[in-house]
Amino acid sequence: MNILMIILVVSFHVEFTNSQHHPLDPLTPTEISQIQHIITNSYLSSLPNLTFHFVDLHEPDKTHVLQWLSSSHKQNQSFPHRQANVVIRGGGQTHEITIEMTTSSIASHHLYTGDGYPPNTFNEFLQAARLPFKSSRFNKLVLKRGLNVSEITCFPFTIGWFGESVTKRAVRLSCFYREGTTNVFSRPIEGLSILVDIESMKIQKLLDRGRRISIPGAEGTDFQTSGETPDHDPIHCEKNKKGFTIEGNNIKWKNWGFHVGFNARAGVIISTASVFDGGKNEWRRVMYRGHVSETFVPYMDPTSEWYYRTFLDVGEFGFGRSAVTLVPLMDCPRNAGYIDGYMAGGDGGPQKVSRAICIFERYDVDIAWRHTEVGIPGKVITNGETEVSLVVRMVATVGNYDYILDWEFKQSGSIKVKVGLTGVLEMKATRYTKADQIKAEIYGQLVASNRIGNNHDHFITYYLDLDIDGDDNSFVKSNLKVKKVKASPRKSYWNVVQETVKTEDEARVNIGVNASELLVVNPNKKTKLGNEVGYRLMTWQPAVSILADDDYPQIRASYSKYQVWVTAYNKSERWAAGFYADRSTGKDGLAVWGRRNRSIVNKDIVLWYTVGFHHHPCQEDFPVMATLSNGFELRPANFFERNPLLKT
Amino acid sequence: MNILMIILVVSFHVEFTNSQHHPLDPLTPTEISQIQHIITNSYLSSLPNLTFHFVDLHEPDKTHVLQWLSSSHKQNQSFPHRQANVVIRGGGQTHEITIEMTTSSIASHHLYTGDGYPPNTFNEFLQAARLPFKSSRFNKLVLKRGLNVSEITCFPFTIGWFGESVTKRAVRLSCFYREGTTNVFSRPIEGLSILVDIESMKIQKLLDRGRRISIPGAEGTDFQTSGETPDHDPIHCEKNKKGFTIEGNNIKWKNWGFHVGFNARAGVIISTASVFDGGKNEWRRVMYRGHVSETFVPYMDPTSEWYYRTFLDVGEFGFGRSAVTLVPLMDCPRNAGYIDGYMAGGDGGPQKVSRAICIFERYDVDIAWRHTEVGIPGKVITNGETEVSLVVRMVATVGNYDYILDWEFKQSGSIKVKVGLTGVLEMKATRYTKADQIKAEIYGQLVASNRIGNNHDHFITYYLDLDIDGDDNSFVKSNLKVKKVKASPRKSYWNVVQETVKTEDEARVNIGVNASELLVVNPNKKTKLGNEVGYRLMTWQPAVSILADDDYPQIRASYSKYQVWVTAYNKSERWAAGFYADRSTGKDGLAVWGRRNRSIVNKDIVLWYTVGFHHHPCQEDFPVMATLSNGFELRPANFFERNPLLKT
Repeated sequence: MNILMIILVVSFHVEFTNSQHHPLDPLTPTEISQIQHIITNSYLSSLPNLTFHFVDLHEPDKTHVLQWLSSSHKQNQSFPHRQANVVIRGGGQTHEITIEMTTSSIASHHLYTGDGYPPNTFNEFLQAARLPFKSSRFNKLVLKRGLNVSEITCFPFTIGWFGESVTKRAVRLSCFYREGTTNVFSRPIEGLSILVDIESMKIQKLLDRGRRISIPGAEGTDFQTSGETPDHDPIHCEKNKKGFTIEGNNIKWKNWGFHVGFNARAGVIISTASVFDGGKNEWRRVMYRGHVSETFVPYMDPTSEWYYRTFLDVGEFGFGRSAVTLVPLMDCPRNAGYIDGYMAGGDGGPQKVSRAICIFERYDVDIAWRHTEVGIPGKVITNGETEVSLVVRMVATVGNYDYILDWEFKQSGSIKVKVGLTGVLEMKATRYTKADQIKAEIYGQLVASNRIGNNHDHFITYYLDLDIDGDDNSFVKSNLKVKKVKASPRKSYWNVVQETVKTEDEARVNIGVNASELLVVNPNKKTKLGNEVGYRLMTWQPAVSILADDDYPQIRASYSKYQVWVTAYNKSERWAAGFYADRSTGKDGLAVWGRRNRSIVNKDIVLWYTVGFHHHPCQEDFPVMATLSNGFELRPANFFERNPLLKT
Repeated sequence: MNILMIILVVSFHVEFTNSQHHPLDPLTPTEISQIQHIITNSYLSSLPNLTFHFVDLHEPDKTHVLQWLSSSHKQNQSFPHRQANVVIRGGGQTHEITIEMTTSSIASHHLYTGDGYPPNTFNEFLQAARLPFKSSRFNKLVLKRGLNVSEITCFPFTIGWFGESVTKRAVRLSCFYREGTTNVFSRPIEGLSILVDIESMKIQKLLDRGRRISIPGAEGTDFQTSGETPDHDPIHCEKNKKGFTIEGNNIKWKNWGFHVGFNARAGVIISTASVFDGGKNEWRRVMYRGHVSETFVPYMDPTSEWYYRTFLDVGEFGFGRSAVTLVPLMDCPRNAGYIDGYMAGGDGGPQKVSRAICIFERYDVDIAWRHTEVGIPGKVITNGETEVSLVVRMVATVGNYDYILDWEFKQSGSIKVKVGLTGVLEMKATRYTKADQIKAEIYGQLVASNRIGNNHDHFITYYLDLDIDGDDNSFVKSNLKVKKVKASPRKSYWNVVQETVKTEDEARVNIGVNASELLVVNPNKKTKLGNEVGYRLMTWQPAVSILADDDYPQIRASYSKYQVWVTAYNKSERWAAGFYADRSTGKDGLAVWGRRNRSIVNKDIVLWYTVGFHHHPCQEDFPVMATLSNGFELRPANFFERNPLLKT
């Protein structure tokens, strides 16, 4: 152990004995540097083309985390071991490494030989995007089109898998003409497509389908409104008092306490969320961990330049890596607090996203509860409260699309999760300028002159490790069944038939107009009245993938056929399309785990919910989309003895 | 014509030549007095027990309304005739009268002899509720139970129809013990039920099932939190400028202009809503009229004291009549403007609901649109805007339940409609204090000691006369169909198959996970690109009635089996369960009109959408419910040439 290591170890120890620290705290920049140092000073440094693809906290076991959090004398307790998971590529292979932070040592190392790859590094994407400009053929083709090469941007797109035997990492580039616009995606150069071998970082194929389709014009494409500053903060609001505290990554607000983490893949991660129950005078567990697990975005165009656009945004790019620096007063209100995000770059060194997450109180104009009572003679009693909630927000901009991710905590005990889609459509250049010219299928909608907004889906899958009042929970379907009656003037009514779901196979659900409530309950805990304590999943507009089951993108994201899955908890099962999502073949992931058909009765279980959008674009989506939202709510159902909004 | 009439006519003429007036303005208090005067001074005054059940503007024809609104020299135009519809009861019969306001005369009068009745007057409900206290039997029964009669409130409940031949109006009373609580509904006196003949205003039957079940205690039932004032306005907000204008009942705000009406039945009514299209530099029509048409609330308990609770809240009580005086800073924010509501009482005289409607700008923390562009070398461009919208709100408290009705207008061109349910559950007393004591069916959930929250539904049906860019519209289903492909590495994709719905029969839709977009388009208007201009219906959580088709409440509200109906426009077809909803038999209403199967292609059409809730209560709904929301959005789809949020 060299001197630097000793320093790092000591500083780490100092850093993590403070009680504001949490065993699930993301890796600090110091720790990321420490990991970089450990690896680049080890035998691994001799690997050709050593690049860091993923560096993240290796979560301590749940029992250790909970033990430490519940201990009242934290300074006398040993903080759960800090370990890190590292995925590197070197010598054309994928290496999985576990680092022991305390001893600054490599605890384990093995080769990953299964299907799929870790996400390409940002630097690899960047290098790939620059390759065409070094190609004389590309430069010639561009000149032939009369284009100014300095106004061209090429974007790398992941290419999925279509049954072929995959032997290397590759991306395809599509290029855009920036001249006269800030809206790069609005001017696609159709007919040029460049396949890049990421391993050798060389152009493998330059496909030129000619200049049959010219580049759509720049007029009316800007989203940067010149001169006029939007009215970002139309009201001046002063808070009476700061309603929440951020200590390290620990958030406390009214009756909620939780931890906000961040990594390159998921982006924002909510952990150990507990709600204070005033009636019991105790903190009660609700969710151990919640985050976006995967995002599947298949485009609906089978033609040669589009068929492969079947993105797994989280696994192939990373929501954390796509996190933007939030703009105060535009992305988050005046009263927001911010948390920076850190991750490792391709060289292993720490990279910072300033203001990656914001946290703010939402003073809504919704009414949390109210009642007017006229039944008391001579009196009209009205009472109620306006809604105040706490929002944790992150925005991931994956190329053209901006995903706004909100976690909203309510004093009623609800957690509301919302995804907003905005940004720019992925568009295809076309010769059409009017709908009546279209005779053949265009796989989308003419959204602007010479531009088709291609049809596509978004399936944002949430990992929700609910631990309602403890680890062991059950998944319950409360089915509404119509009963016929004879001995009543009524002929029918519905009642609720509760079904505790036994196994993972039975837990796959599609929500439609089926009259059914879905609950996660703790069968070991009851209210004073004897009802099982639980939380209910309430969804908004439902949508699932309708692609053919044997279509390759669907095989890779087969979980997207169901909105709801429930699996037995396994610390390693977190990424719905598998960890190695780039060029994956569907051999890992939620559908594989779920079909193991484990028992899920009175077990530590994980709820997976997919928020879906079918997007058939319209002209209003151009040049930039008005936000389209969808989401769900986790709402207490017999968790509290009574409405917690009312003070006792 | 006597002198008073001349004065009224003159004042009316003065009142309505001002351009701030709108042909759909609700009746003013002066006009209501005028109507009362006309009728009570006519031959109708000799009718025994003359009572006023409904007094409302008789809408001018759409063409006249639109003509007047579009005329630039309103002072030279004749304002559309003011007429009123009046429904009175007298001599045990229902009379329908049209009043010509200009001449202060009765224009038409005939008897209504069909099924059902107009809603009982507030005074009739009140008289009925007082009857038990004059009954010596009731007083004895109450004494026997050891109750203090001065602490009892009896509420009248409408009784529906169960196949019997209906010959008179009747209600059933349930009584509650107020002692020690503000939450009257929390202490039901189970086993007492009083049938009242409204025509003779006499107790017809006093059912006593004995004292087997005692009254639930008062402890923990209050919603009026003593001492502590809720934090109604946690922030102090100052607006830079007033963002909207209220002139009479005309609202102007940013790119929206519309009219806000009010009547006893629907409550708030949005009319002639137009959006300003900056690209075309013109106002464009979106919705001619929108309001709640009916609300069906069947309880799921076939026992003798509950089976009949199958309410049609709008037709039997009236959302306008149930409108509460909104409480500033609790129901509406600091920057709200208010509109009072007026209607006729049972004696025909004007009654005022102060602050029945509020209108305010919502400065949300949602992001209206944003994008971060990293594709321009050396630059990161981020732009966007926070959401500001305009909300029109009313709260209808129908006994125990409070319905929060929001119409939200967005600068993107969207209209978002939301219903919030809060207030107090309808509860049944029970001897159970613990869930494990329950062996038989209880038709609900034990929500507090000795109290069952009975299962029920809420179906709030909206009348939406969309006139997208003109009267003649079509209803289009954009169905997403999976296509199989061979000449591509892909095996499938979906495309959009548009189906213009031909007739009313084909327009009934249940939305589930079916991948389909529902649109109202104007087939006569196209964007410059050639797309049909339209608005899309986007729904939240779907729910429809699952009662048996032959069950009587379902026969009365048979439209509730489908979320979506589209009908040909007919001015008289506005109330989904028929106008005479009290004790109705299903012979009138949306299902009857819709089954006429008229053509709806390129016609003036009306869209009906039902927002549904299946409510299986939980303990958190006690003693007062946290608001439960559901709704829908009308979102422009190729209505504008481009996103109207971006300035051109």
